[in-house]
Amino acid sequence: MIETPYLLFLGDAPDQLAAKVAQGIADWRPDNSVGQFRLPGCGADVGLGDMTLEQAKEAGARTLVIGVANRGGMISQAWKDVLLQALEMGFDLASGLHNLLRDERDLVAAAQMFGGTLHDVRVPTDAYPIANGVKRTGKRVLAVGTDCSVGKMYTALALDEAMQRKSMKSTFRATGQTGILITGHGVPLDAVIADFMAGSVEYLTPDNNDDHWDIIEGQGSLFHVSYSGVTMALIHGGQPDALILSHEPTRAHMRGLPGYTLPTLEVLRDTALPLARVANPACEVVGITVNTQHMSEDEALAYLAELEASMGLPAVDPFRQGADRLADALAAL
Amino acid sequence: MIETPYLLFLGDAPDQLAAKVAQGIADWRPDNSVGQFRLPGCGADVGLGDMTLEQAKEAGARTLVIGVANRGGMISQAWKDVLLQALEMGFDLASGLHNLLRDERDLVAAAQMFGGTLHDVRVPTDAYPIANGVKRTGKRVLAVGTDCSVGKMYTALALDEAMQRKSMKSTFRATGQTGILITGHGVPLDAVIADFMAGSVEYLTPDNNDDHWDIIEGQGSLFHVSYSGVTMALIHGGQPDALILSHEPTRAHMRGLPGYTLPTLEVLRDTALPLARVANPACEVVGITVNTQHMSEDEALAYLAELEASMGLPAVDPFRQGADRLADALAAL
Repeated sequence: MIETPYLLFLGDAPDQLAAKVAQGIADWRPDNSVGQFRLPGCGADVGLGDMTLEQAKEAGARTLVIGVANRGGMISQAWKDVLLQALEMGFDLASGLHNLLRDERDLVAAAQMFGGTLHDVRVPTDAYPIANGVKRTGKRVLAVGTDCSVGKMYTALALDEAMQRKSMKSTFRATGQTGILITGHGVPLDAVIADFMAGSVEYLTPDNNDDHWDIIEGQGSLFHVSYSGVTMALIHGGQPDALILSHEPTRAHMRGLPGYTLPTLEVLRDTALPLARVANPACEVVGITVNTQHMSEDEALAYLAELEASMGLPAVDPFRQGADRLADALAAL
Repeated sequence: MIETPYLLFLGDAPDQLAAKVAQGIADWRPDNSVGQFRLPGCGADVGLGDMTLEQAKEAGARTLVIGVANRGGMISQAWKDVLLQALEMGFDLASGLHNLLRDERDLVAAAQMFGGTLHDVRVPTDAYPIANGVKRTGKRVLAVGTDCSVGKMYTALALDEAMQRKSMKSTFRATGQTGILITGHGVPLDAVIADFMAGSVEYLTPDNNDDHWDIIEGQGSLFHVSYSGVTMALIHGGQPDALILSHEPTRAHMRGLPGYTLPTLEVLRDTALPLARVANPACEVVGITVNTQHMSEDEALAYLAELEASMGLPAVDPFRQGADRLADALAAL
């Protein structure tokens, strides 16, 4: 559990894309951050006010979150100076970087001296059990994709937002680095030992009220040969009552796998649903989300209308249209 | 790579079952061991001659392999005395125990002093890549099960034995602790980090001669919610050209999962084959193996004949009948 509120460290991000983790936190959990911290030359702005460490501390910030990707896998001295000063002032640090805070001796020493905590969200923190498959109370929904990076996390966060607005009970359950930094907790599933993957998802989505929905962040794809095992563990550990199919229609091949074509949404449905019903025989596919960022508005609407007709399911781009119709579909289940 | 030949340590195994790892090595790689070492009170015998450490050393043994399960997860002092003496005499040690040799300070100290190696085969030794899905040369076969522990390793070893006898080119590729101890190398797949599972299987089964078969040891089951992700990674990382379906027909529920029934062999086929064709469109199901140990000979033969008729595939119990017909099916592919 990472303590909020945050101060978002954008460092010397060359552009907006480099600060997409900070942007995700600012977009989806605006109340979790008091402001942003930028170094000279920073080309990103996530729309929060700039603050010094002192101002953020006064505003109640507990954790400095590294919301920017670093170049070359090195934590630069310019960053290091800020991080060390933050520890000295009593901040915790949180990071999803590949190179770990805990591997930096000066940060470890400062954290020990000043009583701060270093959160490397790529590293599992808990001893997860082996999955036992016992049916849990409460409801769960999972987005599965025709490929990696087709908008499954965005779908989950938009759905959570829509459900909260409709006063439904829901919790976004993070399974990746960005999701964990956005919400402050979760399971870094791609870093979990094989035997404990499904168990970690059970652990993440425990018994709950009958009308509560866990919205589980999807990972990978059953059709992506590098990561399909992770997706499988989400489907069986998550015991979803509802699946959402996610797709990006302009992609020429599976991400990082030239020569591998994306499955159709029909094939995804017919593959994922029977597998989900192994763990939860009541599971249903309730809707489709499409990332239409590479299509014009007209193209996108026509594509979604066609999908609705052919698949008989609500089909939305949650970025353009929100996820209200998916929330309604869950409420009707 | 664990150096052979072995001396098999049976310790104070209370019965034959406790020494099943040693039995597997003695059964499948009899030339890999010079003998067995038993402590007073040992109730197991894997059919190799008893040897002292000195006799084994003279016979050329390089590694003392712990072929017995330990009770209570402790390495007892009686065992420790033998292991320390073996290191002092220049043996390496190999173990698949849950508690690791490397966590025992006296063993680590002795290994350093005498230049021995401690092999804990539950721990991955290599940095595996992320799977790239690139088509590899050579052929691969994988057994997939309706459940865990239905005879997939036995199927693979019997198939390897049959193919060797027929002068076909084949290599058994171990993915579990027992398999690794039997052959001296492999990938402990259930201990690999999620992101690298499929990549570790690619690494284990690299490019080979066009007429060479890698026989990949199966793990888990697509229908076992605790371990299905591991099975998925084997199917996609292994790129099998051929699948074998494995089953144990008398089991009342999935292993360790009361309330979960086993799928039929038809459902297993219709689930596994389309998933395998994502990575290898040419994949075919070539046969069925059944563990009939809980059936009489007549029952078993009738069951297998019925399966052959209904599924249109050779169906054998490799323990009772060998795997020659499966080797023939692969040769005909």
